[in-house]
Amino acid sequence: MVNAGAMSGSGNLMDFLDEPFPDVGTYEDFHTIDWLREKSRDTDRHRKITSKSKESIWEFIKSLLDAWSGWVVMLLIGLLAGTLAGVIDLAVDWMTDLKEGVCLSAFWYSHEQCCWTSNETTFEDRDKCPLWQKWSELLVNQSEGASAYILNYLMYILWALLFAFLAVSLVRVFAPYACGSGIPEIKTILSGFIIRGYLGKWTLLIKTVTLVLVVSSGLSLGKEGPLVHVACCCGNFFSSLFSKYSKNEGKRREVLSAAAAAGVSVAFGAPIGGVLFSLEEVSYYFPLKTLWRSFFAALVAAFTLRSINPFGNSRLVLFYVEYHTPWRRKTTRLGKYPVLEVIVVTAVTAIIAYPNPYTRRSTSELISELFNDCGALESSQLCDYINDPNMTRPVDDIPDRPAGVGVYTAMWQLALALVFKIVITIFTFGMKIPSGLFIPSMAVGAMAGRMVGIGVEQLAYHHHDWIVFRNWCRPGADCVTPGLYAMVGAAACLGGVTRMTVSLVVIMFELTGGLEYIVPLMAAAVTSKWVADAFGKEGIYEAHIHLNGYPFLDVKDEFTHRTLATDVMRPRRGEPPLSVLTQDSMTVEDVETLIKETDYNGFPVVVSRDSERLIGFAQRRELILAIKNARQRQEGIVSNSIMYFTEEPPELPANSPHPLKLRRVLNLSPFTVTDHTPMETVVDIFRKLGLRQCLVTRSGRLLGIITKKDVLRHMAQMANQDPESIMFN
Amino acid sequence: MVNAGAMSGSGNLMDFLDEPFPDVGTYEDFHTIDWLREKSRDTDRHRKITSKSKESIWEFIKSLLDAWSGWVVMLLIGLLAGTLAGVIDLAVDWMTDLKEGVCLSAFWYSHEQCCWTSNETTFEDRDKCPLWQKWSELLVNQSEGASAYILNYLMYILWALLFAFLAVSLVRVFAPYACGSGIPEIKTILSGFIIRGYLGKWTLLIKTVTLVLVVSSGLSLGKEGPLVHVACCCGNFFSSLFSKYSKNEGKRREVLSAAAAAGVSVAFGAPIGGVLFSLEEVSYYFPLKTLWRSFFAALVAAFTLRSINPFGNSRLVLFYVEYHTPWRRKTTRLGKYPVLEVIVVTAVTAIIAYPNPYTRRSTSELISELFNDCGALESSQLCDYINDPNMTRPVDDIPDRPAGVGVYTAMWQLALALVFKIVITIFTFGMKIPSGLFIPSMAVGAMAGRMVGIGVEQLAYHHHDWIVFRNWCRPGADCVTPGLYAMVGAAACLGGVTRMTVSLVVIMFELTGGLEYIVPLMAAAVTSKWVADAFGKEGIYEAHIHLNGYPFLDVKDEFTHRTLATDVMRPRRGEPPLSVLTQDSMTVEDVETLIKETDYNGFPVVVSRDSERLIGFAQRRELILAIKNARQRQEGIVSNSIMYFTEEPPELPANSPHPLKLRRVLNLSPFTVTDHTPMETVVDIFRKLGLRQCLVTRSGRLLGIITKKDVLRHMAQMANQDPESIMFN
Repeated sequence: MVNAGAMSGSGNLMDFLDEPFPDVGTYEDFHTIDWLREKSRDTDRHRKITSKSKESIWEFIKSLLDAWSGWVVMLLIGLLAGTLAGVIDLAVDWMTDLKEGVCLSAFWYSHEQCCWTSNETTFEDRDKCPLWQKWSELLVNQSEGASAYILNYLMYILWALLFAFLAVSLVRVFAPYACGSGIPEIKTILSGFIIRGYLGKWTLLIKTVTLVLVVSSGLSLGKEGPLVHVACCCGNFFSSLFSKYSKNEGKRREVLSAAAAAGVSVAFGAPIGGVLFSLEEVSYYFPLKTLWRSFFAALVAAFTLRSINPFGNSRLVLFYVEYHTPWRRKTTRLGKYPVLEVIVVTAVTAIIAYPNPYTRRSTSELISELFNDCGALESSQLCDYINDPNMTRPVDDIPDRPAGVGVYTAMWQLALALVFKIVITIFTFGMKIPSGLFIPSMAVGAMAGRMVGIGVEQLAYHHHDWIVFRNWCRPGADCVTPGLYAMVGAAACLGGVTRMTVSLVVIMFELTGGLEYIVPLMAAAVTSKWVADAFGKEGIYEAHIHLNGYPFLDVKDEFTHRTLATDVMRPRRGEPPLSVLTQDSMTVEDVETLIKETDYNGFPVVVSRDSERLIGFAQRRELILAIKNARQRQEGIVSNSIMYFTEEPPELPANSPHPLKLRRVLNLSPFTVTDHTPMETVVDIFRKLGLRQCLVTRSGRLLGIITKKDVLRHMAQMANQDPESIMFN
Repeated sequence: MVNAGAMSGSGNLMDFLDEPFPDVGTYEDFHTIDWLREKSRDTDRHRKITSKSKESIWEFIKSLLDAWSGWVVMLLIGLLAGTLAGVIDLAVDWMTDLKEGVCLSAFWYSHEQCCWTSNETTFEDRDKCPLWQKWSELLVNQSEGASAYILNYLMYILWALLFAFLAVSLVRVFAPYACGSGIPEIKTILSGFIIRGYLGKWTLLIKTVTLVLVVSSGLSLGKEGPLVHVACCCGNFFSSLFSKYSKNEGKRREVLSAAAAAGVSVAFGAPIGGVLFSLEEVSYYFPLKTLWRSFFAALVAAFTLRSINPFGNSRLVLFYVEYHTPWRRKTTRLGKYPVLEVIVVTAVTAIIAYPNPYTRRSTSELISELFNDCGALESSQLCDYINDPNMTRPVDDIPDRPAGVGVYTAMWQLALALVFKIVITIFTFGMKIPSGLFIPSMAVGAMAGRMVGIGVEQLAYHHHDWIVFRNWCRPGADCVTPGLYAMVGAAACLGGVTRMTVSLVVIMFELTGGLEYIVPLMAAAVTSKWVADAFGKEGIYEAHIHLNGYPFLDVKDEFTHRTLATDVMRPRRGEPPLSVLTQDSMTVEDVETLIKETDYNGFPVVVSRDSERLIGFAQRRELILAIKNARQRQEGIVSNSIMYFTEEPPELPANSPHPLKLRRVLNLSPFTVTDHTPMETVVDIFRKLGLRQCLVTRSGRLLGIITKKDVLRHMAQMANQDPESIMFN
């Protein structure tokens, strides 16, 4: 095999990789993939299929199937992600209501489903339909009074604790990777890192189940970030069914980018927002072909979800982002006992949340109420304004009115809920359960926004002669809409946390349908980004990635320092020289010793140690496999056989053992830069071409090597040296 | 200057470029810029400002101003683009109405403005307000009858001819670059090509004026593509005010990308669609920073437009794309006489368009009517259904009804208008006037869609027992909405022409506010892309770029052939060897001769002709300037002075003339690949790093050079060899 005829070019690598060693071409866990190599492997595969397709009808059909498999995978991902999201929605509805009571006609009905057929006409009365029994009614037959309240309170806490305990136990025992939102890790994986099992079937199953449990438990978290993780698990599963994707880590990542879009699409019911989110926030390599496929997957997923849960809360059920609070984890003892931690936080959440109507209900309901404007039929406390009895009230156009008692109460409760939400959210995130930050941060923004909105409204009502109001707010007109303030507040808060801009605005208006509010939403997104950037350039995902130390080369970071490749490459001055192979003078044993003594991923091959002229690069993994194979199968290969990478064997003394040809494991087109190349350019090359390593030369002589980790380390060093520089970006 | 102390790295180039030769660092017309170099120049500038900013308060303020200048430019572009779009809208309104009549109270009022204060209550009556006089009323005092009709017809044609003649003359005499939509050229410019004057002030002025003229003349074209060109001219103008942008072709292109977004934003009133259009269709290098800035510029522009023309037709005034019809231009004699061509096409358009109500009105009004659903108050012919007299009609919910006479008439007229529109649009585009294809292609799609919609509606009404209708269309229900069919048809037609997907859907729903129709729109966009791709992969812009032979390296094209760098590089086998400079053995005269005899953009520098080890690359332009400067200012430099690129002068015989040091014009980090590198990788590198040229080496020895044009030529060759391969993408 290894001795077969002389060939040149990168194609060789592929022939060699064909069958005998199935492991060749895969990467080890927690290593980085080589994008250029994956791409060239896919082109080879594609060329092979194209040339075969001319041979027979069957091969032609196979090639067509191969060409369409991308769309098939997208369809399957869309269907499964939409179905899972629909099932999660329904289960969460039921289990959230289970904390308060149960439906007598069928215990698997949620409150709304239970009372759906009730004859009561107003919404308020229908909520109290006789088939739906609160726990106090069911257990002690009392619906009002202190003891009923306490019993309901206790049942609420008990159910919450049960759900949370189940969730954290499942995650701990079966799938530790199911915790958190998963977005930072997905971002890292998409950039080319390998984390085995992170997108596995087991993670998919456990994350889906525990997601239902934690959301139902009433913890201050949402399900949208985890839904992106779930969709990516679906993507990984379906891509493993097609060899085009399962055997190529680069192609697989294209599928995962689209799956992330489908995840956001079902999380918010926002297919376009999903595509943009994947583009702006998550993906690393996003060719236009992936844009179209993502679009298709997001469309199918949104459509599937709508078919399953057509009247459900697929709108205004928002997206979580993990809020990482490492200082807490690292300074409290509680963090060492994840199960206990979850139980304590759940108990605190349930105890404090129950008495306040704004924290008791689910966060998405809260956001929905805050966004809504007060119509004439609104029964919410927030809409308890004093009406002018002399005025005829058209349904749509209600002028600004003085606030009534209900509004003042609501303001106090909102203020308390705001403080509670901010504090408890900080404690909730980072726990070992599926969780995100989208819903909580939107809720915080919406509460603050609504309070400001009501404040401005009352100011405008009582002081419409002030200069700020005089021009646009006549008495008796409807000039301030507190609901809009809430919406803008939610967008601003979310924008500050995640630093999304375009995708944020698109998601917000896909969520609310409020196309006419595009200008305030855009202004909020831009302003919140400016303000947040003044405190630090990193969004929540990047912060998380840096904290976890993943080798992620962010496209957003700019590198503007004046260092050169020679400052970063190894070996540095004083270090032992670079470990290289020579093209035709080392023995098998020499190479084996070198492999044993070092742990580099590969070795440059030079003409000779004197000339140091670079010939190519050999991967460690492939060298090991090739030598092992040759020793087993090829006759005459012994420890002092000469290894050569040239096309012709070197001239050897008469009685020397048979030489070993290894040209096929040699990458003849390694990436090189000169030692004078600015690091700025090197960073750009690593980022855009997705390299693992790059060789440094001067006048054609090999000087050293720069790996992705060297680049990241250097960037971190430079950023620490000169923290001021970020303000000038 | 040139003799100053030894330094290393790319920074040198900058010091050298500082003042004495203002031309250094600029590019010649119809040449390609070097993105990496522009980027590194900007980093140097930025570093200099940052280090200076610590010296004094004033420098600190200057550095802040520099950091914010990007946002200032965006603000200015948004303001000017919005203003121009508003003015164009108002002028077009007035001049379009001028073809039919004039307002007696003030001749600069459009029909709508003229009758705004009229007392008539219904829309129809108000359109006939006495202040607005048709030409027949004004000239012969007749408003009805055959002679009035003929007079109005003639005036309509006369005005149209006048406007068209003025427009084509202005373009021909003052600004030939103002013709067409400009998008293909802008795409090429953004990819790094230099076309001087294409975005100049003169183009801006003439394009704005002629745009008003041609749209008012009633030709089958729209103003949206040209508006993108106008916005880019604004961007170019404002970037010339700030040295950060005017002196750096790379940074200038970031501003232009954002300006394109602002252009689309005002063209459709769709800020988010604008950003996406710039990202998906127009831009080449689009970092996230540009995404945010584009977003801001688009926001300001949309807001400005709305302030100028708040009740105007900023919605449903769509975007043109140039429709290129080279076969016509090349086979008819008319194409050689652009003015005559415009006159003839305008006359034909006006003569045929006037009698048919669907072609007489402006295309955007037509689209608006086709998109609208028939409400109870609708007076359009398209809504002339036979009503059931026994039925009480709620305002919103009208069941499907049998078509009346008006609908049948409308169908015939629409069918004729459709045929006319398709034919005349083909003849209109490619004329030497500002023009695009967005509105006409949307109109074609909308007409076809509406006709299909009415057909399906009548089928469903008369045959609601058919299997396809039985499940979802009960008798008496409103189950088919012809307006939606029109919208989907417009999106599909536009998608087929431009191959936009995500940006298309976003623009469509920003235009119509129809967020709920996202699923049919997405389905239409994906399907039309599939169908159109089956006929050929190129959208209208790419086709235009290829026809004009611009050196545009499309990110969408995939290169999957098995060629290597060695197959593409020059010199090929049998050709004379590569023109190189040696580092320390050529005289000034040798170099001058080499420069005179060749027209290469630059020359590789090697250690010696024997070793051929690569040292760096010297740009032709900078070599010429440096030699010229040295000859003028440095003493002892004569024709047989030795030129050296090393740090130390070479050892020379005692009486040899003073040598000339040119290390400063040497780029010490030229881009190299090995001869075995697959062309696929080389194409990727050119695309992603925006290179002009790349040197090819083997074992450290220089073998040849590959320029961007070599890459493009090779890609075109390979595509012609194997046209089948495109179907497998």
